Amino acid sequence: MDQVRIGIVGLGNMGTGHARHLIQNKVSGAVLTAVCDQSPDRLEWARQELGNQLAVFTNVEDMYASGAIDGVIICTPHYAHPSEAIAAFGHGLHVLTEKPAGVYTKQVRDMNQAAKESGKVFGIMYNQRTQPLYRKVKDLIAEGEIGEIRRTNWIITLWYRAQSYYNSGGWRATWAGEGGGVLINQSPHQLDLWQWVVGMMPIRMRAFCSFGKYRTIEVENEVTAYVEYPSGATGVFITSACETPGTNRLEIIGDRGKIVVEDDRLTLYRSRQSETEFNAAFTGMFGQPEYWKIDIPVGEPRGEHYLITQDWINGILQGTPLLSPGEEGIHGLSLSNAMLMSTWTDDWVDFPLDEDRFYELLQEQIRNSKTARTEEPAGTGPM
Amino acid sequence: MDQVRIGIVGLGNMGTGHARHLIQNKVSGAVLTAVCDQSPDRLEWARQELGNQLAVFTNVEDMYASGAIDGVIICTPHYAHPSEAIAAFGHGLHVLTEKPAGVYTKQVRDMNQAAKESGKVFGIMYNQRTQPLYRKVKDLIAEGEIGEIRRTNWIITLWYRAQSYYNSGGWRATWAGEGGGVLINQSPHQLDLWQWVVGMMPIRMRAFCSFGKYRTIEVENEVTAYVEYPSGATGVFITSACETPGTNRLEIIGDRGKIVVEDDRLTLYRSRQSETEFNAAFTGMFGQPEYWKIDIPVGEPRGEHYLITQDWINGILQGTPLLSPGEEGIHGLSLSNAMLMSTWTDDWVDFPLDEDRFYELLQEQIRNSKTARTEEPAGTGPM
Repeated sequence: MDQVRIGIVGLGNMGTGHARHLIQNKVSGAVLTAVCDQSPDRLEWARQELGNQLAVFTNVEDMYASGAIDGVIICTPHYAHPSEAIAAFGHGLHVLTEKPAGVYTKQVRDMNQAAKESGKVFGIMYNQRTQPLYRKVKDLIAEGEIGEIRRTNWIITLWYRAQSYYNSGGWRATWAGEGGGVLINQSPHQLDLWQWVVGMMPIRMRAFCSFGKYRTIEVENEVTAYVEYPSGATGVFITSACETPGTNRLEIIGDRGKIVVEDDRLTLYRSRQSETEFNAAFTGMFGQPEYWKIDIPVGEPRGEHYLITQDWINGILQGTPLLSPGEEGIHGLSLSNAMLMSTWTDDWVDFPLDEDRFYELLQEQIRNSKTARTEEPAGTGPM
Repeated sequence: MDQVRIGIVGLGNMGTGHARHLIQNKVSGAVLTAVCDQSPDRLEWARQELGNQLAVFTNVEDMYASGAIDGVIICTPHYAHPSEAIAAFGHGLHVLTEKPAGVYTKQVRDMNQAAKESGKVFGIMYNQRTQPLYRKVKDLIAEGEIGEIRRTNWIITLWYRAQSYYNSGGWRATWAGEGGGVLINQSPHQLDLWQWVVGMMPIRMRAFCSFGKYRTIEVENEVTAYVEYPSGATGVFITSACETPGTNRLEIIGDRGKIVVEDDRLTLYRSRQSETEFNAAFTGMFGQPEYWKIDIPVGEPRGEHYLITQDWINGILQGTPLLSPGEEGIHGLSLSNAMLMSTWTDDWVDFPLDEDRFYELLQEQIRNSKTARTEEPAGTGPM
């Protein structure tokens, strides 16, 4: 195979974006051969904009079984990602799924299992992993530049959404339609990066979600979470969709220094001696190691979605390991699920997450929902 | 009275500093006439350095009853502050106490009551309240520049202490000797400022203290606290005495903008329209109010202790209201006590604090302490 034939399921915001990248040949080794959506308008749009040689489908199974594609990009509502991915693996297709991996990890674990059994290449659209800034943070930490991690802190409140945004679709910000708010819709990239750059997951968490804060919605739109890692390190993650102007500041402290990312700049505070060594040797009252404040070069911002698509295609054609393997989608989602569960139970959540318990609690929210059960229309790429 | 005759009890780091300011005439309207300490060496130092016309005492009650002083500056160990203040009020003396107000609020409440009944002028050495930076933050908030507070966040981890610091005195970092760690010794200024600048206390708190982290001590040296205010606003306070290089970053978000203090700079992010107004009127998907990033002039750093002493003297001589009334010491201490109590009980703490419960829990820590019961020597000003 020298060209991967791609199908896209769901022609919403994200799906149409991916389709355009493919027909603009931004991804080498890939060709768009089919699309699937339930909306006749969207399919008509696809015929006109994407070329009428394209196969169009209203049923996912039909597209999967058509023989017209080797891989699928899944851009449907959150809840559908795992089931559609599982079906695709069943048809021997490679899969690239939009984030989040799903709404609850129980379902995502089944998806990961199906991926493994299929042997196909499975990616997830964590396009922020292509940002030179966060790759550099991960690189610095992996190379030991700040030593063993002591504390992490991310304040990410750039996700301002007015009531009109939520009113734009009845499925928005409902338990039935989206299965969450800022955690499932706006923050998944940072939830992924938070664990990806440090290369570790917490061992337990206590979180505080506010639901419908300053908004008429039922899901969470402000969150503070405290975590403890197996090493004894601690961390805090704060996100909000109701404050403006927002903040995006990541601070990671290690035994040997500190990394601060804010306003797209990466600053490394590098101690000349590790804290552990200094502490063992120091005999005075108030000293601390000398440190250097260093502006780390990170290159131009990237983060385009097609970079992840290209990486996935490379994985299919050349067998290269993925920057953003689909199986890793479960990490950020576990954090997100845990934040809701900790709030609902007003208790600690231990990792690995009790997935059955989370699933039950989510169903309870859906049952108790006061809003009509309104499904997100297939193909409406959430943002 | 045109000059207030001052006695100082406790000639440790802080007491000797205050004494020097007084004999250097940095405080107008005040004269140092007596000192009290149990250590002959310190009293000898006082005679040589402060002038031999000074009355020296080894017993506080004797100094209070001597008629040689009108007011007292209390610089003894934390535990002694309230009882020594109460005794001073009983003798009709004005009182300026070092921070913290005490170790547990139950005792501090008695002190405040005694102050009230005495009618004397009662101050506390929250010298950071004289910082133009924090005064400006308080001023901006009070004037409504950022509207109603939505969220507060303070990361204050500048308090690095190596093991040798703790080893320098057997009383240090013990429940019996100090009654706490970073919360009682290093962070009281920020705990005070945190509530002072926003002019409100939380309604409840959940906190996570680490005890003896990377150190052989029994008290807390890393803390993360989450709070909720009566208005629905939330907040986080993070402090540490075991990381380096440290951070000092305060962020306060309101309905109309945001204040960020870091690296001694004050930045105001001012929205042209309040979030509430914008949200009510906006009909699109992703907009938010225009905002301006403004560098706020704050003047030269101050914060010297003698400014608080001067303010207290002015209060005595001219009846002016104090910048840092002693009665307000209970606020920061309530926050500190709540952080420990929430950790010990692994539960929420509601405000006002259950003071009896905290007292019991503290006594339990003292009883269970594995270190010898070593009292901090009188006059050793903790830092």
